[in-house]
Amino acid sequence: MKALFFDGSLAVKEVPVPEPKEHEVLVRILYSAICNTDLEILKGYMGFHGIPGHEFVGEVVTPGRKLSGRMVVGEINCPCGDCYLCNTGRRTHCPDRSVLGIFNRNGAFADYLVLPEENLHSIPDNLAQTSAVFTEPLAAAVEIFQQVHIRPAQKVFIFGAGKLGLLIAQVFRLNGCNYQVLSRSETSAGKAESMGINAALISTLNDTDKAEVCVDCTGSPEGITIALAHLYPRGKLVLKTTVANPDMIDLNQVVINEVEIIGSRCGPFAPALRLLASGLVDPRPIITATYDFGDILQAFEFAAKPGVLKVLIRH
Amino acid sequence: MKALFFDGSLAVKEVPVPEPKEHEVLVRILYSAICNTDLEILKGYMGFHGIPGHEFVGEVVTPGRKLSGRMVVGEINCPCGDCYLCNTGRRTHCPDRSVLGIFNRNGAFADYLVLPEENLHSIPDNLAQTSAVFTEPLAAAVEIFQQVHIRPAQKVFIFGAGKLGLLIAQVFRLNGCNYQVLSRSETSAGKAESMGINAALISTLNDTDKAEVCVDCTGSPEGITIALAHLYPRGKLVLKTTVANPDMIDLNQVVINEVEIIGSRCGPFAPALRLLASGLVDPRPIITATYDFGDILQAFEFAAKPGVLKVLIRH
Repeated sequence: MKALFFDGSLAVKEVPVPEPKEHEVLVRILYSAICNTDLEILKGYMGFHGIPGHEFVGEVVTPGRKLSGRMVVGEINCPCGDCYLCNTGRRTHCPDRSVLGIFNRNGAFADYLVLPEENLHSIPDNLAQTSAVFTEPLAAAVEIFQQVHIRPAQKVFIFGAGKLGLLIAQVFRLNGCNYQVLSRSETSAGKAESMGINAALISTLNDTDKAEVCVDCTGSPEGITIALAHLYPRGKLVLKTTVANPDMIDLNQVVINEVEIIGSRCGPFAPALRLLASGLVDPRPIITATYDFGDILQAFEFAAKPGVLKVLIRH
Repeated sequence: MKALFFDGSLAVKEVPVPEPKEHEVLVRILYSAICNTDLEILKGYMGFHGIPGHEFVGEVVTPGRKLSGRMVVGEINCPCGDCYLCNTGRRTHCPDRSVLGIFNRNGAFADYLVLPEENLHSIPDNLAQTSAVFTEPLAAAVEIFQQVHIRPAQKVFIFGAGKLGLLIAQVFRLNGCNYQVLSRSETSAGKAESMGINAALISTLNDTDKAEVCVDCTGSPEGITIALAHLYPRGKLVLKTTVANPDMIDLNQVVINEVEIIGSRCGPFAPALRLLASGLVDPRPIITATYDFGDILQAFEFAAKPGVLKVLIRH
C-alpha cells in the first residue's frame, strides 16, 4: 500500500499492508486530516518515526467482525488494559500504550491502518465523513468538560482561534457560559465571528480583563503566559498546547494567585459523535482545503502556512 | 519602638509605634517566628522594604475594642473588602490588599504591629503561645484541604521535610491517606520519623513509585520537577514553594499526563486553631531555637543554616 512515512524527512512510500493482531481489525482509510501534532512531529515531537496521522474516517475491511463493513472513527490510544492506570479509568494514560501515528504505532496517512476493534466507533448514517473526521479533535475539546466543572455563569477566555480553538469554542458556546475566543490575528477572529463564535483580538484586552477559566490552545509557547495574565486568582487554566519546544512558566504567580493548571489531552468519542450527529457542532467551516492522498506532501506544506485551518486528505 | 528593618540590608532600628487606623488595633508582640518567606524577602522576594515578619502571637493593647486585652494571632492579608474578588470569597487575593510584613505593610519583627481587628483571632486559654505562633503556617497547610479533595484511600507524596512540610504532613496524617514525606536529608527524614510522620529519602524512590497527589514544599526550584516525575497521570500537584528565583517546568508533560497543578498559599485560621487547641497537631517539635528579640540578627543568621527548622523570637 501507499503510505506517508516520516523518518526525519517526509516521503510517500510503498509499504506492506499492516496485519491485524488478535482483537485488531484492518481499516481502509477514506478521509484523514492534518493536526498540529502532525506538524510538531515533523519538528521532532515524541521522536516519532513511521506513518503519522491519527484523525480519520474509514471502513472496517476485516471480515466476520462486529464492525465489518461499517464506517468508523477510532480512538488513538491503545492501552494494555491490565495495569493500575487502565484499572482506574485512565486507559489513555497506560504507560505501555501505543498511540496511533504518534507513538509506537503507524497511523492514518496510508491506504490502511490497524487498530483494536474496541477503539472503533461506527458513525451514524446521517453524519458526513467530512464531519466525522473531526471526532478525535472534538473529543479533545469535550475532554475539558470531563476534567473541569465549567459553570454557565462563568467568564471564560479561549486563547487561540486555530483548528482546535474553534472546536473548543463551539463546545463552550453550548454551555451557556460567557466565553470569548481571543486571537492575535484579525483573519482568525473574523473567521470565528463568521461561525457565530464570540471573538476578539488579544490586543484589545486590558490588564484588568480577566476570566475564571482560561483555555490555552494557541499552540504557541507564549500562549500560557498571556493566559495566566488574564486569569483571576483561584481561576483555572486549561492547557491544550503541546509543542516540540515547550515553554516554561513562572511558578511564583501560580502559588501566589492559587491558580489551577489542568493539562488536557484526548477525550471521549461518544459525546463528540453525539454533538456532531445532532449538528450542535458543525466543524466543516474549519476546513480550509481538501487534497487527494496523492498530493499529501503538498497538503502538509499548505497546512503549515499561517492562517490555514484544517486540511483534509481524501484517500 | 524597636523594629527589625529591611531595606536591602537588615538592621534593628528605633521607629515610631504604628498608629492604628479606623478598624485597626495595636498589638504588642509576644512571640514571632521566622518563615522561609522572610528569608526569601532578604533575597529580594516581593521587593519588600520595611519591617518583615508575619507569624506572631500578641496582645491587643488598643483599649475599648472587642478583643482588647486578648491574646491573638492574625491573618496577614488585609483586603479592600469591596472588589469583585473580595465579594466572591477571595479576600486573600484582593488586588488592593496589603500583606503583613510581605507587601505594603509593616510586620511582626517589632515591639508592636497594627492589623484590622477583623484579621485577629483570639487564642484559646489552654493553647501555649509557642504553639499558637504556628497558626499562620498551619493555616497554609490546611489550605490544601480547602482547595483539593484529598481522598483517604489515596497515595500522597509530600516533598520536603522542612518547617512547612512537617506541618503539612501532620495534617495529611489526620486524613487517613497513605502519605509519605520525602526528603533529601537523612537528618530531616529522621526528624519527621521522630514526630511519628512516615518519611523516607527521595533517593529511595524508584521511577515507578508514584502518587495520586504530590505536594511540593521543598522550597527549592527543583522540587516541582521531582514531584512531577512521581505523580500519576491525572494526579494533582500542589505547589507551596515560592522562591525569589522561581523555576520553570516542562509543560508538555503536564498536557500529556493531564496533570493538575494547584498553587496554594494562605489558609483559614479557625481550623488551624482547632487542630492546635485539640492537640491533634503539635508543632513544637519543629522549633529548633528561640532567640530574644535583642538577638534577632543572630536568629536570622541561624535560621538560614541547613537543617534548621523553626526559629522563634521572644519579644
